[in-house]
Amino acid sequence: MEGQTIITTHDVDELFISTVVRLIQRRAFPNLRNIIAKTHSADIARWFPRLRPEAKSSLFTLLIEENRMGEVLCDLNSADISEFVEETESVVVANVLRTMPADDVTRILSELPEENKAELLNLIEGENSEDIERLLEYEERTAGAIMSPNYFALPEETTAAEATEKIRELSEVEMPPITFYVYVVDEDNKLKGVLSLRQLVQTKPGTPLKNLMTSHLYTVHTDMPQETVARAVARYNLLAIPVINSIGQLVGVVTIDDVVDVIREENTEDMLKMAGTGDLDITSRSIFRNTRARLPWLLASFGGGLLAVYIIGIFEAQLQQIAVLAAFIPIIMGMGGNIGTQSSTIIVRSIALGEVGVKDTWRVLWREFSTGALLGTTYGVLLGGFASIFPLFREYAWKLPLVVALAIFVNMMIAATVGTIIPMFFKRIRIDPAVATGPFVTTAIDVIGIFTYFLLAKIFLFK
Amino acid sequence: MEGQTIITTHDVDELFISTVVRLIQRRAFPNLRNIIAKTHSADIARWFPRLRPEAKSSLFTLLIEENRMGEVLCDLNSADISEFVEETESVVVANVLRTMPADDVTRILSELPEENKAELLNLIEGENSEDIERLLEYEERTAGAIMSPNYFALPEETTAAEATEKIRELSEVEMPPITFYVYVVDEDNKLKGVLSLRQLVQTKPGTPLKNLMTSHLYTVHTDMPQETVARAVARYNLLAIPVINSIGQLVGVVTIDDVVDVIREENTEDMLKMAGTGDLDITSRSIFRNTRARLPWLLASFGGGLLAVYIIGIFEAQLQQIAVLAAFIPIIMGMGGNIGTQSSTIIVRSIALGEVGVKDTWRVLWREFSTGALLGTTYGVLLGGFASIFPLFREYAWKLPLVVALAIFVNMMIAATVGTIIPMFFKRIRIDPAVATGPFVTTAIDVIGIFTYFLLAKIFLFK
Repeated sequence: MEGQTIITTHDVDELFISTVVRLIQRRAFPNLRNIIAKTHSADIARWFPRLRPEAKSSLFTLLIEENRMGEVLCDLNSADISEFVEETESVVVANVLRTMPADDVTRILSELPEENKAELLNLIEGENSEDIERLLEYEERTAGAIMSPNYFALPEETTAAEATEKIRELSEVEMPPITFYVYVVDEDNKLKGVLSLRQLVQTKPGTPLKNLMTSHLYTVHTDMPQETVARAVARYNLLAIPVINSIGQLVGVVTIDDVVDVIREENTEDMLKMAGTGDLDITSRSIFRNTRARLPWLLASFGGGLLAVYIIGIFEAQLQQIAVLAAFIPIIMGMGGNIGTQSSTIIVRSIALGEVGVKDTWRVLWREFSTGALLGTTYGVLLGGFASIFPLFREYAWKLPLVVALAIFVNMMIAATVGTIIPMFFKRIRIDPAVATGPFVTTAIDVIGIFTYFLLAKIFLFK
Repeated sequence: MEGQTIITTHDVDELFISTVVRLIQRRAFPNLRNIIAKTHSADIARWFPRLRPEAKSSLFTLLIEENRMGEVLCDLNSADISEFVEETESVVVANVLRTMPADDVTRILSELPEENKAELLNLIEGENSEDIERLLEYEERTAGAIMSPNYFALPEETTAAEATEKIRELSEVEMPPITFYVYVVDEDNKLKGVLSLRQLVQTKPGTPLKNLMTSHLYTVHTDMPQETVARAVARYNLLAIPVINSIGQLVGVVTIDDVVDVIREENTEDMLKMAGTGDLDITSRSIFRNTRARLPWLLASFGGGLLAVYIIGIFEAQLQQIAVLAAFIPIIMGMGGNIGTQSSTIIVRSIALGEVGVKDTWRVLWREFSTGALLGTTYGVLLGGFASIFPLFREYAWKLPLVVALAIFVNMMIAATVGTIIPMFFKRIRIDPAVATGPFVTTAIDVIGIFTYFLLAKIFLFK
């Protein structure tokens, strides 16, 4: 099948990328120009994370010369975008940005420091720059900020034939990237309906759009969060969703390819939040930035740890009598932490997918509590059995096994419950449940677990 | 803006769902029929997780009567699909399935037990059932299993006018759900190229497709994993990707709306795997199934905990002398566990997004190791400072603070490294890095942390 590009598997990609990286480092520019001409911009963007700084600079220069830098820039990760802007002359950056769609430029500019942004906006000038300035005014991560101001809209009275003619007249440059919907608007640019290109092709030439369009359509407001936009497009299987302002005027569209990026970005963010690395840029190579993003989240865990030191301090007298009590601290903490993480992950993900809402609190709480009780019984019996046959603990007869079995049972039950309550509570008070789930859940569970264990020990072993 | 449906935010959804749930439970069927007529099938599907079993049955019956069950079934979660099939007569289920696209039927059948599947296939009969049987033969989660066998393909010599005419002739029923691409094939149905509906509209009527099409196109093979398909569609901003068999014949297309579902499904799976609840169906209400899915993953943690009991047992003599040593076990475990989870989440997600490959092992290992060392130094100093002012530990002078500071430093450094090495190693031996990252990483880190701590204590406090 000559002339066709067959998508290769990830492993073949790896090999190809290594080859390219070597060519760049050897400055084999003629070969590279050939490869660049044949490679999709999204694939070129994937070379960057593997390159050393000098090699990146050479590739930037090469891509500018080949007029490919604009396309590639849309697909770069934020660390590489910053590098490009920082080490390239502003006039050159502006030239590159001028070749790009307004929504992509907006996304790039919004990540830059204020002074860079203003300078570049000045240098870009022209019609596009007005669009960009307008887009930059919307709050980040809203429909307004991610929409494309390029859409195809016509008045209600237009006929199918006239509409087809209009599409024919559009040059490739003016054409919105994914135009398969024709929007219908009134004289104030208020959205009235939508029809698909297919409907246009299938109808009689003289039919006015008014008779073809559906006016039962899904729209989003400029200030809606990007997750809501993504959820709507995904749920209703749309290819694009029109964005309207507060008075119902059509101001842009969010297309499904951008929605795919939003979904991936939101998922990454959820996972990082749950691991307690909220605002980390995973593409950054900087050890210092990596450390700074992770430091504050570990404080929750540190604070909980100090509390545990204090709690165990209270029971010092008991520990001094039966030192082996300490031997069970790790297993009680570990089992509690793991079952709690399971519960909170299930809840956070169910909330994100819309499977579970605030109204379901009691139902999911009951399910997780019961699961915790069942698993706690299982592992309580196992641990009690183990403790009663282990030689080190023989001298405490049935009491120590009973204490550890009870401790792990109670702790797993509490952990599953806490792992459910915390994200549900965050959801209710409108904080992203993923934010605090990770560090909060594990820390709370550790502290409660330690306290319960020593309390049980005190009751049964030292009345 | 009358007659238009404006997408509402999630919270308003919640309120609406509660109202509907009450109507169903009150068996207010006339009202419900009205609401059903006006509601998108994807929204109807979202009522189910909130309903009790009897209410579900009523809603199933109502939807069958209103001829909406087919659409809604596509959007139900797997627990609700099973319930529908289990408690509805096979003839009725087959009637519903007959109204659905072949790829959706395939997805539903592939989740059912063998005998149900065979019975239903028999009952469906007809042309569609051949498509379905063919699709069922592909391995689950491959391009073949998720593709739609409905696509629009024409011979190379067809002119634009003829192609437009063909599209006009297609009835709504025969029309593939998202047809914006026209595929061009030779007499053996081998894929030759592709053009968009827009190109068709923009060209002169007499132009043959051969001159319009691009033959530089992305395709996937029937046996490619669905993640690879999703990655390709997302990376190259496609609306659909053609699926070809081993001899290059076009056999189906995967459209972007299905890709969105795959991305969400794969992300959910990764999160659950990392939390150690690998094969859990988060939509299931069954406490027993929930417990069974989570039990085995907790075994890793249990085994690690027993190892910790053994290790601490070795140091029993030291513990008996200085019982307060036990007070620092939780903080050392907690800090190690949290930094390790941070590292492994960052690595697993970077691998999933294609930002990091096996070739980058040394680079990311160095970054995470250094981050661990920096964070370890910070929290080591903090904990050492704390231990030296806390009254309980005064009697051990500078030695205990030194031991705990060193222990937390070493442990955080090791934890960040282990959290990086384990997923990278799993990636290299071609096991999904998400699978074992959660339980393996935390358990390994706990055991190493406890051992290091007591070893340091023995060296410095009891030479």
